[in-house]
Amino acid sequence: MDLSPSEVRLQCRQGTFHYPTPGIANGSLQANLVILPRTLAFDFLVFCTRNPKPCPLLDVTEVGNPEPEIVAPGADLRTDLPRYHVFRNGEFEDEVGDVSDIWQNDFVGFLVGCSFSFEAALMDEGIPVRHIQEGKNVPMYKTNIACKTAGEFSAPLVVSMRPLSPADVVRAVQITSRFPKAHGTPIHFGSPEDIGIKDINAPDFGEAVTIAEGEIPVFWACGVTTQLAILQPKPEIAITHAPGYMFVTDVKDDHFSW
Amino acid sequence: MDLSPSEVRLQCRQGTFHYPTPGIANGSLQANLVILPRTLAFDFLVFCTRNPKPCPLLDVTEVGNPEPEIVAPGADLRTDLPRYHVFRNGEFEDEVGDVSDIWQNDFVGFLVGCSFSFEAALMDEGIPVRHIQEGKNVPMYKTNIACKTAGEFSAPLVVSMRPLSPADVVRAVQITSRFPKAHGTPIHFGSPEDIGIKDINAPDFGEAVTIAEGEIPVFWACGVTTQLAILQPKPEIAITHAPGYMFVTDVKDDHFSW
Repeated sequence: MDLSPSEVRLQCRQGTFHYPTPGIANGSLQANLVILPRTLAFDFLVFCTRNPKPCPLLDVTEVGNPEPEIVAPGADLRTDLPRYHVFRNGEFEDEVGDVSDIWQNDFVGFLVGCSFSFEAALMDEGIPVRHIQEGKNVPMYKTNIACKTAGEFSAPLVVSMRPLSPADVVRAVQITSRFPKAHGTPIHFGSPEDIGIKDINAPDFGEAVTIAEGEIPVFWACGVTTQLAILQPKPEIAITHAPGYMFVTDVKDDHFSW
Repeated sequence: MDLSPSEVRLQCRQGTFHYPTPGIANGSLQANLVILPRTLAFDFLVFCTRNPKPCPLLDVTEVGNPEPEIVAPGADLRTDLPRYHVFRNGEFEDEVGDVSDIWQNDFVGFLVGCSFSFEAALMDEGIPVRHIQEGKNVPMYKTNIACKTAGEFSAPLVVSMRPLSPADVVRAVQITSRFPKAHGTPIHFGSPEDIGIKDINAPDFGEAVTIAEGEIPVFWACGVTTQLAILQPKPEIAITHAPGYMFVTDVKDDHFSW
């Protein structure tokens, strides 16, 4: 039986849910998590504001308050995700199931949209999503496009790729236009070299997928951009979700769509 | 002859442009201005993020830097608007043509979308905009809808009203859907009482307009909400544009539209 968002979060809190979240609490919006100290929070918020395609903000918590009041009132960002990554001075330190013991009164939590929402919408319209068909993680690439910087935050734009037929590219542009909080429309399609990708079969993150005859690689801004950006200022401490282990919100996949 | 955006800004800088900006540099996106010290900038940015309909962010400057690099590279927020309002401790102090002498190294500038963009789009489609037809300022009302708070920032949602026929309401929803950075879709139509407006003929700001037989009042979130919010924490100093004397950007009216 499919769990509700609050049931998923409760099981995370109780330490009994340890699974990746794709397909979980189906139809609920899932989010990337970033936690930073207050001293860096302003510049990071400006970074997200300047780069809304890779970093679409869904919710920002009050300083020291772990509750995302807009998308999941009553939830607790310290306990309600299945897995967290902890970084110290810009370096990965640990993967943990709970960050209550390292929570600080000056922490600010950011929830950033992810591509799951628009992938569901594509599949609802009969558009194939190759990495899901092939049971893989989506292929992701660093590009030669620089994000707009903010304070010490900077990053190359990271993109995810889905191969589509020309007719499906057209339809996918229409559909993803409706999901500005899930990275929105593609940033490029066609030649990978145009955006600095040397080998489409060697993604920087995730796994390569089959590109069939007549299909065009289509590139969307990707939330992994956020993960690169937050380590640039070498923050004393930063916390994120573990890749694939997202925060499950109470709002529907299309809550921020028009 | 119509001035270009940079010509308008240069004339402001030289002290020779003292006029309201509606209709100026036609087709260019205009913006509300808020300047706050760094200590309040984070919470205000969170306020805008939580209330994107009244406070759609177009650009945020780096701390101490008066250049809005995204929408008007090379421009200077200290000099390039025709009129400014200066507030001290949450009270209006002065209207001036230049804020260079009171600029501080800890100032952050926020440019917030305004309704001019979508009004142009409505008129392009043949939808009448009553206050423009009648040569008046748009009627604006405080509602009983509270914005989401952030830190010490709070405000009632302020709305602007345009009366439309039912068929034009439908079309206006479609058109304004495309302008999320210009307050987007209406937040209400029909009964003013439903959102706490006691007398539609007595707006809190601007001027009353004629509502013809068969027309429905349609309410959009309004940037004046921002002006109320910034005074709540009684900031030692805050600067805004003077109402009607907006910042003229280099990007087109539909730059942020899809």
